[in-house]
Amino acid sequence: MSDQPAPGVAVHLGANKYGKAENRLVRITRDTTRHEIEDLSITSQLRGEALAGSFLTGDNSRIVATDTQKNTVFALAKTHGVGSPERFLTILSQHFTDSFDWIEGGLWQAEQYTWERILVDGSGHDHSFVRTGGGTRLASVQVVDGATHVTGGVKDLVVLKSTGSEFRGYPKTAFTTLPETSDRIMATSVTARWRYLPDAVAAGVDYNAVFADVTRVLLEQFAVVHSLALQQTLFEMGRAAIETRPELAEIRFAMPNKHHFVYDLARFGLDNPGEVFIADDRPYGLIEGTVVRDGVAGAPDAWRDVPSFV
Amino acid sequence: MSDQPAPGVAVHLGANKYGKAENRLVRITRDTTRHEIEDLSITSQLRGEALAGSFLTGDNSRIVATDTQKNTVFALAKTHGVGSPERFLTILSQHFTDSFDWIEGGLWQAEQYTWERILVDGSGHDHSFVRTGGGTRLASVQVVDGATHVTGGVKDLVVLKSTGSEFRGYPKTAFTTLPETSDRIMATSVTARWRYLPDAVAAGVDYNAVFADVTRVLLEQFAVVHSLALQQTLFEMGRAAIETRPELAEIRFAMPNKHHFVYDLARFGLDNPGEVFIADDRPYGLIEGTVVRDGVAGAPDAWRDVPSFV
Amino acid sequence: MSDQPAPGVAVHLGANKYGKAENRLVRITRDTTRHEIEDLSITSQLRGEALAGSFLTGDNSRIVATDTQKNTVFALAKTHGVGSPERFLTILSQHFTDSFDWIEGGLWQAEQYTWERILVDGSGHDHSFVRTGGGTRLASVQVVDGATHVTGGVKDLVVLKSTGSEFRGYPKTAFTTLPETSDRIMATSVTARWRYLPDAVAAGVDYNAVFADVTRVLLEQFAVVHSLALQQTLFEMGRAAIETRPELAEIRFAMPNKHHFVYDLARFGLDNPGEVFIADDRPYGLIEGTVVRDGVAGAPDAWRDVPSFV
Amino acid sequence: MSDQPAPGVAVHLGANKYGKAENRLVRITRDTTRHEIEDLSITSQLRGEALAGSFLTGDNSRIVATDTQKNTVFALAKTHGVGSPERFLTILSQHFTDSFDWIEGGLWQAEQYTWERILVDGSGHDHSFVRTGGGTRLASVQVVDGATHVTGGVKDLVVLKSTGSEFRGYPKTAFTTLPETSDRIMATSVTARWRYLPDAVAAGVDYNAVFADVTRVLLEQFAVVHSLALQQTLFEMGRAAIETRPELAEIRFAMPNKHHFVYDLARFGLDNPGEVFIADDRPYGLIEGTVVRDGVAGAPDAWRDVPSFV
Repeated sequence: MSDQPAPGVAVHLGANKYGKAENRLVRITRDTTRHEIEDLSITSQLRGEALAGSFLTGDNSRIVATDTQKNTVFALAKTHGVGSPERFLTILSQHFTDSFDWIEGGLWQAEQYTWERILVDGSGHDHSFVRTGGGTRLASVQVVDGATHVTGGVKDLVVLKSTGSEFRGYPKTAFTTLPETSDRIMATSVTARWRYLPDAVAAGVDYNAVFADVTRVLLEQFAVVHSLALQQTLFEMGRAAIETRPELAEIRFAMPNKHHFVYDLARFGLDNPGEVFIADDRPYGLIEGTVVRDGVAGAPDAWRDVPSFV
Repeated sequence: MSDQPAPGVAVHLGANKYGKAENRLVRITRDTTRHEIEDLSITSQLRGEALAGSFLTGDNSRIVATDTQKNTVFALAKTHGVGSPERFLTILSQHFTDSFDWIEGGLWQAEQYTWERILVDGSGHDHSFVRTGGGTRLASVQVVDGATHVTGGVKDLVVLKSTGSEFRGYPKTAFTTLPETSDRIMATSVTARWRYLPDAVAAGVDYNAVFADVTRVLLEQFAVVHSLALQQTLFEMGRAAIETRPELAEIRFAMPNKHHFVYDLARFGLDNPGEVFIADDRPYGLIEGTVVRDGVAGAPDAWRDVPSFV
Repeated sequence: MSDQPAPGVAVHLGANKYGKAENRLVRITRDTTRHEIEDLSITSQLRGEALAGSFLTGDNSRIVATDTQKNTVFALAKTHGVGSPERFLTILSQHFTDSFDWIEGGLWQAEQYTWERILVDGSGHDHSFVRTGGGTRLASVQVVDGATHVTGGVKDLVVLKSTGSEFRGYPKTAFTTLPETSDRIMATSVTARWRYLPDAVAAGVDYNAVFADVTRVLLEQFAVVHSLALQQTLFEMGRAAIETRPELAEIRFAMPNKHHFVYDLARFGLDNPGEVFIADDRPYGLIEGTVVRDGVAGAPDAWRDVPSFV
Repeated sequence: MSDQPAPGVAVHLGANKYGKAENRLVRITRDTTRHEIEDLSITSQLRGEALAGSFLTGDNSRIVATDTQKNTVFALAKTHGVGSPERFLTILSQHFTDSFDWIEGGLWQAEQYTWERILVDGSGHDHSFVRTGGGTRLASVQVVDGATHVTGGVKDLVVLKSTGSEFRGYPKTAFTTLPETSDRIMATSVTARWRYLPDAVAAGVDYNAVFADVTRVLLEQFAVVHSLALQQTLFEMGRAAIETRPELAEIRFAMPNKHHFVYDLARFGLDNPGEVFIADDRPYGLIEGTVVRDGVAGAPDAWRDVPSFV
């Protein structure tokens, strides 16, 4: 090594985890001729004091190889099915913590992609599907100190309203040039992650029903709230989600303000009453917030190493 | 300049064009409280002998600035509306070739993104929308030697069938290891570009209706054709498109074969009869082909500088 | 709103922040004919109890508009220069917390892109530059409860060694199929974030010198450590960084194991002693860990909303 | 099929090809302890009249499976080595057209990624490497009607000059608002593809030396030309490349004008003499042009299905 270590410098291993990321699992249920498809990207990562040897000395005797984690994902998809990403991640978490006494916990994450049946003569085909938009489903299961935390979520849910959005009343500072507006386009790409109440998880949750309800009310609120700020819309979306589903403890949002600027056509003698816009890429506003059910205890472990907002 | 030119070396300007790319136009129609949205990325590029001066000597006296082209896109979106990408690109092409006698032609291209109304209590909202998947619409208008060529298209139309696909009977060469299969997943992301017959363009085409019909029959064919090869599926999709719409001269496809491999679970004592797959990214098969209506004259100018297949 | 709120459901606002993301700042220093370039993407986000009104009622009276934050970035780049991303983010943080008494803190983040002078006749040109690889520089400044936390970092530092890497001795479980190897390609894309000791920040840090030293020793360690596990390489890289620069409190890494598989050529009667590999995209190993200087107090606030590992 | 075919509609197969795309080949040469690395993405696609059966009837009896093409890429990398992308693609093209008499031609394309040795104590390490920027190398070999065409190239070569660029003298039209400038930032990401003269290919070309020379003079010209238009810079870059290397027939460029706008600081009482810029993403100028050696015959077959400019 080319650098002389400073005398007396000593270091230790801090937070860590390891595993296999983005296992692209496609699970076909073909019990009948009418197939079902589940399409996910699954990341499995393990934690445990006993794993330190791999970092400190290259001792792999407790390292459940990332390749083994990958094989496990696909094998358990066969033996247990998927059902919902939250359910399948829970099965994975139980498998690893039960099978290896030195695996103390970990983080399992999923994205799920949505497919619809292709319409043929107006009916959904038995085994042919088309990928749809409308957002990618998210889930995570985290095991820390014997507790299991479950989140659901959605990302890339892109929405726009062409009116019903204002932005006024902000401080006019030395560097403020933005004119106030009582009618603008508001557009965002919603990332939301909701944490399930531990009691609800223990009692059993219909995760697919919750996902459907939450995404539905998020869209509805975005539509019906007359917006004074993207912050306000965010809060009303979160409030409605928690009101709708008693299983939810809290919901986090990251909502970029995807700017659409009214194009200045007055230079060409044309008026432009909110008809012609240029969509801009960067920079963008970035509004992040959490809505929490009153009386619910916080759970920082649930969010450990889960992307903070986005 | 640091390099001594070789004596007697002479060069000239070959094919060229220039313009403004990816103008992100959002056009709201708000004549009533029920708004309509059109969301596009538009590229405008011009050609003409008189433009050579800019390349050869930096003489910009005939260069319609790319910033001017951008302004024009947004101004004409106000004065003419969009209607369909093919219609709007045609308006742009006419504007530039009519306004500047030294502009001999050019290539105008568009992508269009699809939005649906957000459902509130089961009804589509007046002015709130959600981006959908199911592919991005494509269009191009090319003017060469006084002729105008129009194409429509779609990309990122991702489809999968979980059975009804075989691949057998191929040569077994020194480097062949692939086993034959009579039942596999077939998945692809369709890029298709169809050229309109000049007579149809002259008579007037309902471009939106054609787009809807063509994408519908592409999906239907993908679903119903029992596939012996992705090539065969491609051809049947093209044949159906041309049969369905008399306005089409030809249709080009680029269809990656997005491999889904049956995960080998026999190593764990599990059978896997087409239930658990791993989706792979790269490499992928890449099948490209054109289906042409009999008796139609070729039009290489229509495809000049349009992405060959993808 | 379409959903009847459950009686008695009450919610409150949790963690939040807001601002302008990815301001693409290019700062040219042109005091002489030999120009300097600094090229960054800067994100500014603010926090404060007084901002809750915007979320709760759409009261923007304390919202320093994200557009104002953007203007501030560019104005302060003029008046103060950049110097280093850590320095410039600190200036931004001080501006916002000093100028607005209700702004209690925030998170300021930067990416910086590297340019080299173009060589002409062997000498670097005065004002012409080419973008280089070798990683993107990262920095963050976080202000929480009156304390300022500073991190530096790098991402997309892609490295590979073609020998000197083993992976053996791991448990052979029911789902283990990976063969042991004493000679493999090891490749990764390093993301590292190091936290500066508060005392060092207070005393003044030469951030550019630290960045140069840390990235140099990270590369050196990757090269010279004979690797028994990617975990071990990670730890040795972190240890060397902390030994080299006394300003560092800790360093976090996210290191994907970018798999390169020996292509099976035996099927064709060819041996392949580590010569021909196929690089795979997904899934990939994902090893994350932290190396901490002994005796240093933890600082979770420093990492609030900073991407956990990646 | 759900759509009634129009009576008398007949179609035929037009242009097509098929193969395996983006084979990620990493070739290590380890004859000594000082290893060499070659890292490429290779696409192989075949053409031939006999392949029509696969499209028309699903007859695969002449389909050299894309999986076989993949195996061939890796096997020939072992038996022949890479050397240069142009050389290796030529070997592939000869293998396929020689081995299968019904394969009439095809298109083979490569990207090559650049690695440098990691410096340890000032010396390049024997077997540890870091990915560098400065552009991705491109190559193609096309076989049509018995003729072989070879191109080299580069993409993602990102350059910027902070002065020495003007844009003036363009027409002021109804939609022109751009002010003239005699001093702006000019930035672009160069894509260049050069075609080798068939005689040079036949005589044998040192492709690596040409690549080094051409990229060097492209950078030099970008630096030293005082630019009146990006078009002019493009032409001078091409002229220099052809003057420098007698093997070149022509060179094509796609050069986006990556806009950097002077940030308006006058609103805050600050001047900004070309110091603080905001880099914009979209839209961008897009300048494309070809420089051709005088007296050289055109070769449209060389460019068949090669990306037109970009």
